[in-house]
Amino acid sequence: MSPPIIPSRIPLSDDLGLGIKDSPARGVNKDGTFNVRRLGLPRFRSYELYHHLITMGGFRFMALILLGYLLTNVLFAAIYLGVGMENFVRPSGNGLLDRTLDAFFFSAQTLTTVGYGHISPKSHLASAVAALESLLGLLSFAFATGLLYGRFSRPHAQIRFSQKGLVAPYKDITGFMFRFVNRRSNQLIEAEATVSLSLHDADTNTRRFMNLPLERSKISLFPTNWTVVHPIDETSPLYNLHDTDLRMAQAEFIVLVKAFDDTFSQTICQRTSYTADEILWGVRFKPMSTFGKDGRMEVDVDLLDAVEALTG
Amino acid sequence: MSPPIIPSRIPLSDDLGLGIKDSPARGVNKDGTFNVRRLGLPRFRSYELYHHLITMGGFRFMALILLGYLLTNVLFAAIYLGVGMENFVRPSGNGLLDRTLDAFFFSAQTLTTVGYGHISPKSHLASAVAALESLLGLLSFAFATGLLYGRFSRPHAQIRFSQKGLVAPYKDITGFMFRFVNRRSNQLIEAEATVSLSLHDADTNTRRFMNLPLERSKISLFPTNWTVVHPIDETSPLYNLHDTDLRMAQAEFIVLVKAFDDTFSQTICQRTSYTADEILWGVRFKPMSTFGKDGRMEVDVDLLDAVEALTG
Amino acid sequence: MSPPIIPSRIPLSDDLGLGIKDSPARGVNKDGTFNVRRLGLPRFRSYELYHHLITMGGFRFMALILLGYLLTNVLFAAIYLGVGMENFVRPSGNGLLDRTLDAFFFSAQTLTTVGYGHISPKSHLASAVAALESLLGLLSFAFATGLLYGRFSRPHAQIRFSQKGLVAPYKDITGFMFRFVNRRSNQLIEAEATVSLSLHDADTNTRRFMNLPLERSKISLFPTNWTVVHPIDETSPLYNLHDTDLRMAQAEFIVLVKAFDDTFSQTICQRTSYTADEILWGVRFKPMSTFGKDGRMEVDVDLLDAVEALTG
Amino acid sequence: MSPPIIPSRIPLSDDLGLGIKDSPARGVNKDGTFNVRRLGLPRFRSYELYHHLITMGGFRFMALILLGYLLTNVLFAAIYLGVGMENFVRPSGNGLLDRTLDAFFFSAQTLTTVGYGHISPKSHLASAVAALESLLGLLSFAFATGLLYGRFSRPHAQIRFSQKGLVAPYKDITGFMFRFVNRRSNQLIEAEATVSLSLHDADTNTRRFMNLPLERSKISLFPTNWTVVHPIDETSPLYNLHDTDLRMAQAEFIVLVKAFDDTFSQTICQRTSYTADEILWGVRFKPMSTFGKDGRMEVDVDLLDAVEALTG
Repeated sequence: MSPPIIPSRIPLSDDLGLGIKDSPARGVNKDGTFNVRRLGLPRFRSYELYHHLITMGGFRFMALILLGYLLTNVLFAAIYLGVGMENFVRPSGNGLLDRTLDAFFFSAQTLTTVGYGHISPKSHLASAVAALESLLGLLSFAFATGLLYGRFSRPHAQIRFSQKGLVAPYKDITGFMFRFVNRRSNQLIEAEATVSLSLHDADTNTRRFMNLPLERSKISLFPTNWTVVHPIDETSPLYNLHDTDLRMAQAEFIVLVKAFDDTFSQTICQRTSYTADEILWGVRFKPMSTFGKDGRMEVDVDLLDAVEALTG
Repeated sequence: MSPPIIPSRIPLSDDLGLGIKDSPARGVNKDGTFNVRRLGLPRFRSYELYHHLITMGGFRFMALILLGYLLTNVLFAAIYLGVGMENFVRPSGNGLLDRTLDAFFFSAQTLTTVGYGHISPKSHLASAVAALESLLGLLSFAFATGLLYGRFSRPHAQIRFSQKGLVAPYKDITGFMFRFVNRRSNQLIEAEATVSLSLHDADTNTRRFMNLPLERSKISLFPTNWTVVHPIDETSPLYNLHDTDLRMAQAEFIVLVKAFDDTFSQTICQRTSYTADEILWGVRFKPMSTFGKDGRMEVDVDLLDAVEALTG
Repeated sequence: MSPPIIPSRIPLSDDLGLGIKDSPARGVNKDGTFNVRRLGLPRFRSYELYHHLITMGGFRFMALILLGYLLTNVLFAAIYLGVGMENFVRPSGNGLLDRTLDAFFFSAQTLTTVGYGHISPKSHLASAVAALESLLGLLSFAFATGLLYGRFSRPHAQIRFSQKGLVAPYKDITGFMFRFVNRRSNQLIEAEATVSLSLHDADTNTRRFMNLPLERSKISLFPTNWTVVHPIDETSPLYNLHDTDLRMAQAEFIVLVKAFDDTFSQTICQRTSYTADEILWGVRFKPMSTFGKDGRMEVDVDLLDAVEALTG
Repeated sequence: MSPPIIPSRIPLSDDLGLGIKDSPARGVNKDGTFNVRRLGLPRFRSYELYHHLITMGGFRFMALILLGYLLTNVLFAAIYLGVGMENFVRPSGNGLLDRTLDAFFFSAQTLTTVGYGHISPKSHLASAVAALESLLGLLSFAFATGLLYGRFSRPHAQIRFSQKGLVAPYKDITGFMFRFVNRRSNQLIEAEATVSLSLHDADTNTRRFMNLPLERSKISLFPTNWTVVHPIDETSPLYNLHDTDLRMAQAEFIVLVKAFDDTFSQTICQRTSYTADEILWGVRFKPMSTFGKDGRMEVDVDLLDAVEALTG
């Protein structure tokens, strides 16, 4: 049986909302989402649709708009054909293809409100359908305007964490450490980091959580990279633990980073986690910053994951 | 006469702004709105109109837009008829119905700026009215764009509270508890809960308020459900009280929950309250989470209100 | 010479940024703006224009849009006349008035992109000017959309303060008090009040500032009205002072109120001040709230300024 | 060798995220941006494009829109010419120039959805291209609407700092001081200032950072100017230092100012720094405020940098 990994002197901090029943799966995914399946959520709510539309990928979004445009025109073309194309002034012949395409393009010209007029409704019924379609067109594009703005103005944190955490030398002892960079050109201030350790307690078959004290938990400005360090001293729950201990205890380090983006006056957050398998031992981070010829500091974000073997 | 329910050792916390005069009605409604009628508020202010338009239901909003479109067209059709349809190039006959419908559809084509041109103003007066209508159309749709964006981007907290609060076993004692879930697919962090108890003081015929200490008042991440517990120990105002005591004292538990939604970088709030009638005794909450076959945690939000009898 | 009004035991709090040189004028106006003239501010910056456009009155804003529409059309009509109306297909005669009005209405139809086509450019030069005008039209209405949204979505705090502050009985002593209501139908939470007293110090001919401790400086919910009280006990700088003392010392009570509007997820602020002339003595506030027939609390915001004489 | 400039009794505060390796270059530029070159940042991300478009200068932005309009029309004109202008109803001759310009202006009339109709697609292929172009036009202007709103509504802090910091008399001692004004007409509240000193430590060839205690670090209202003072008393790291000491130690004072703009409900931030070369000795700031004839305070922001020699 494994020894009590969590020393009793360590007070239980909050459980991060992840419950205390134990599971072999990680609590937080590498990309920061919660590794939880939620059942019974309501679907088809308008705010969920909006949420989905502003967070989906750009290509899919554009494809969706194009598809929506196409389908709406197909729908209205069908209605105009049902009404009868003899209700329209139009330039083309009377074959089915000509009638259909005229209906389709009249719909497009109405939906976008371009309204050239070379195809135009002759009867009042055709006019009525067109009046509805042009209203729908304007509202759709009002909605698209909001979506485009929502997509661009929502927080786009681009904090990237090192793929691996390290247990590496820190001053005279060792420390658990990882680092991260801001991958955007915006300026972040008042960055804060919180690290929690989650361990399996074999005695009670539950999972326990505790906050890890950090060498520094907040910095005023965050221009470049920051290496967050939990010093493994005598008060650390990691004291005297080894790689195998962490694996046996199904250890998971849960990381939460907050910062203030003063370009958009927004607080941004990003999360990640490191499981025992994602901890490297016996290496240290390579420096990411050098000084250019002009004495200006240079940070190469591509070096984020670069480590080197300990010497001596 | 009832005994002094609020022990004198409990300091009065703030009164939540609800005043201290007593009323038999609850202070906070189940949906979190204040149970207060406000008289003398100014009406017909533009910001109140905006507020109303972005918080009303989606179907009513759409119906309102459709109605507004219809009425505006009816209004301008009347003006065009007043000006005289002989001022227009138009395709239809001279009967009243034809003239009226041409005026209506010309208005629709102008308001939406589709402007096919098969109906078009011939005289300068008709042109002038149409110039005004097209400006109005553009401004209306500019307004609709803002409304649609405002509707979707405003905070849509979907925190749902359990219908009932419980007085149930907690560790070696009992506790007042309720739970809530996030019914949206977004990720909330830094959730905070505050619970206040409001009691009728028969001696002074006033209502007194106090904050209840919680087992935990803040969690870092909030992926699933959270059961908030006020431990009923010797320092609790609920110590040794029973169901009938709470009813006699017209007890009301007022709940405020805050969290940060990092998809939209917004702080969201939700409120509710539990009256003495809404407290269950002698049951406990059923668990809401299990583990799926893949070891991933599953939370079924439909189990929010599920309770089970205490055994033994 | 007046006695030292500010007892030396009262530590000087921050000076609110208003400087310490003395002036007979009030520091903060009744509507909460600073009573300071700022010289040398840059003008004609785009963000100042935007700021002005979203804070100006609704009627002036609408008049401005109408005027801008008119003037832009006059400008482009002049250009089209300069180009020559023989470059256009158009329905009217060749008199100056006909040519001018055709130019004007063609401009309007181009700016709003209604584009009926019964007036349309014949030459390439006319087409080029129209292509520019339609671009300008779209950008203007894009800008108007942003303005309308900015106008409605910006914070619209409607906290109204009582016109007068009172020195009135409070428990066994007296207190300086005022009250305020939320005049909107939205729900405010976590309201906070700060009151500073500014006094003329005749000895040094400077103005001194101090924060006044409040009976309560924060409330969790703010459904109705809140009476803010500074108890005048032995530690208060107002202790044993009278109406004439406050006037002689040119006293000004500066009030700052903050609250969180959870409909819009915005923090709102409002300020006001009370000079010695705006303090009533020997009266107290009439209650603003009663209970309706259904036991529900009713608050009449029209009673905000209602006071009644002290009896006996 | 220089003496240890940072007394050992001064605890190292956080390093502002600027690293501790030493560089002769300043850490923060005069305009508040970090003096760091970041390599390896991803380019051509949509949020970077958006960020660039809403922060670029107004003239460049307008020129870019005009250019985009021109190029899109050139592109579509080329497509229409490729399709063949015989597929269009159009008013002009058949020469290359006429055909090209008709194609160009038809494109413009489609992109802006003005759609007069005097040029209009005759064949279905031409209609199909036009249907795509009008969709593109609407989406582009939806995007432009978002950009314009984003440009105007983002925080526009206009806090201007004095060009020079001063070491000047303060009470009975001296202090390091600088001042700043709000150059906008909006009202800022709750302004906060933080000043850090960065010094080269010759012993370890590293740079050390420390926070400087301020006479006052926060003011409730910020109507005018604020002179921030770090008193140079015995506990100050600047105690007994001279101009040459600061230069030798490559001193840099890093300034961060935050405030709340209650017109837009936004927190704004601004940064600057003062190197040893930008510190003036033996002068003091001239007052910026006087009282007008009406007793109202007047602040002349043009006097921000005005200093005067110390007398006697």
